Amino acid sequence: MTMGLRCVAIPVCGRSKFDTAFPRMSGRAVGAAVAGAAVVTLLSVAIALCEPPLLAVLQRTFSLHTAHLRKDMENFFQLVKNIVPALTEKKHKGQDGRIGIVGGCQEYTGAPYFAAMSALKAGADLSYVFCAREAAPVIKSYSPELIVHPVLDSPNAVQEVKKWLPRLHALVVGPGLGRDDLLLKNVKGILEASKARDIPIVIDADGLWLIAQEPALIQGYQKAILTPNHMEFSRLWEAVVSSPVDSSDDHASVLRLSQALGNVTVVQKGEHDLISDGQQVVRCSQEGSSRRCGGQGDLLSGSLGLMAHWALLAGLEKTNGTSPLLVAAWGACSLTRQCNHQAFQKYGRSTTTTDMIAEIGAAFSKLFET
Amino acid sequence: MTMGLRCVAIPVCGRSKFDTAFPRMSGRAVGAAVAGAAVVTLLSVAIALCEPPLLAVLQRTFSLHTAHLRKDMENFFQLVKNIVPALTEKKHKGQDGRIGIVGGCQEYTGAPYFAAMSALKAGADLSYVFCAREAAPVIKSYSPELIVHPVLDSPNAVQEVKKWLPRLHALVVGPGLGRDDLLLKNVKGILEASKARDIPIVIDADGLWLIAQEPALIQGYQKAILTPNHMEFSRLWEAVVSSPVDSSDDHASVLRLSQALGNVTVVQKGEHDLISDGQQVVRCSQEGSSRRCGGQGDLLSGSLGLMAHWALLAGLEKTNGTSPLLVAAWGACSLTRQCNHQAFQKYGRSTTTTDMIAEIGAAFSKLFET
Repeated sequence: MTMGLRCVAIPVCGRSKFDTAFPRMSGRAVGAAVAGAAVVTLLSVAIALCEPPLLAVLQRTFSLHTAHLRKDMENFFQLVKNIVPALTEKKHKGQDGRIGIVGGCQEYTGAPYFAAMSALKAGADLSYVFCAREAAPVIKSYSPELIVHPVLDSPNAVQEVKKWLPRLHALVVGPGLGRDDLLLKNVKGILEASKARDIPIVIDADGLWLIAQEPALIQGYQKAILTPNHMEFSRLWEAVVSSPVDSSDDHASVLRLSQALGNVTVVQKGEHDLISDGQQVVRCSQEGSSRRCGGQGDLLSGSLGLMAHWALLAGLEKTNGTSPLLVAAWGACSLTRQCNHQAFQKYGRSTTTTDMIAEIGAAFSKLFET
Repeated sequence: MTMGLRCVAIPVCGRSKFDTAFPRMSGRAVGAAVAGAAVVTLLSVAIALCEPPLLAVLQRTFSLHTAHLRKDMENFFQLVKNIVPALTEKKHKGQDGRIGIVGGCQEYTGAPYFAAMSALKAGADLSYVFCAREAAPVIKSYSPELIVHPVLDSPNAVQEVKKWLPRLHALVVGPGLGRDDLLLKNVKGILEASKARDIPIVIDADGLWLIAQEPALIQGYQKAILTPNHMEFSRLWEAVVSSPVDSSDDHASVLRLSQALGNVTVVQKGEHDLISDGQQVVRCSQEGSSRRCGGQGDLLSGSLGLMAHWALLAGLEKTNGTSPLLVAAWGACSLTRQCNHQAFQKYGRSTTTTDMIAEIGAAFSKLFET
């Protein structure tokens, strides 16, 4: 596998200590890029003019930095490998993961299917979907692999889901949830019940819309992971940070949002994925593609639900002291991007999420089992 | 790619200036074909009898004409390539196209699925279907990639669809619509609301039946494209042109229908597809097959919805002053015919539209990304 310089872990103590050695070439960073180019030019001139000893020093400095970053990346691959449970003949059905997806309503049925299926394809033994009654037959029809509970718009929804919580290793809240008042009210109750049982919770899509309305729902819950895209990130930021977002420094923003939410893990999806637990920022730039069809986020949230369970089960010893949820998020981001890459190689512009899910097995094996 | 002599752009100022160098061998053109054959025979005799200089002149004249037509064809391929948006990592989900399909009723559920799926496979990021309640679970079950709104027979249908219009880049009205009075009444309201937002609208199937009943619905709307087959064309003609259709001159007819509708773009589907914006007529004769299974028109309308958005976004600069909707229509016709050709190569007489949709990725790449 060609890894290149794709993944950087950046421990920070505040807003300012971010890596700038590898410029992010977004439109808004053009100024920084120009400055960087000027530095490189000056260094080149200096190198050309200098005696061999100075040249050697400069080269060593840069190669050391490069080596450091590559090592970080390799470390993260190793940390993810450490949390993946061994497949052994001694295990029973369910031990490698029972993941619940909360979502699926009148309009949206594909998203919870994608998330539940992605958890299964990444190695979960059982996937459950808790959705509105109307969505259930459709979600069931997509695949006989899923267990689908048509309870989310029932007056007893919270009680119905609570009965299943003891069996679940992780919950993914939001894929295809929509914004119906009754469903959101029930989801609030499910979040409270899941927190009471200390279950890891991934929150995406309209689950994040709910959190933006009521951040206290997740504030300070150490087993929560939020996975906002660009728009969802802005909405969360406005809800919990008083000052305007600094769009020139994504690293600082994701760190600050995590801190403002009480060190909840935040995965900011984008050209690169940035992950923070409020203490450090990790970047995942595993090669994906430029195809942006709907549903990719569900592959991420579903596989992340599973990997969050694995990482917490493995514990800090296996993650060398790095936050297990940070390792899980980095693993799921890498996996999603690799699936995107593989599917795009085959289908180009016509790639859809179904094509990506079909790649999970090969992508997982390539990234984490070699 | 073998292009052959397939596509001709013919600027015209009236009914008379149409290309006749490439006889269209339909049944009704047999007389013209016989006359053409006689001319060719006479020319062959003349060439055989003449001195070399006259032979050279005749050969040069024909090769120049051939070269001109080939250049037109190549130009149109280039114009379509110009409007296809680059895939870049800077984009967010949705930016390459959010397309809405209005259709799907008690009897018809396949057509809106085909159209929505074709838009996705041609490169749209998101596809929405607005259909009757009864049709929704079935359309959803065909694919988790689609977002399906069961609102078209609701008393609030227009309001429900209006909520989504700000997100949509183009609307395709008609696939699987049927002729139920309530649905058609709601579609009229949706058309008015879409026009008020200046959204490009492709109209096909029973959407065209509605327009034939009430041409004023679309009269003069510059972002409308109608895609009639032979029967639908006749019905529209009867509704808006007082004189009988001149069946010996398809070019003139499609031009006249477009003009009578206030320069709405018209795509007359047939052995060759003829496209007019009331100012010029473009012919698309990309090689397809002789298989005419149901649903091919939905592939055309769905991909055309997407390409209409792309073309209008690209603007006249990218289309070298040619009407963007003409370029979009030519692109979607070529794509549909190429999918038909590729599927037929594999499945022959048993080819169905599902087989054609599976070819969209490769066909698109072959036509527009090489």
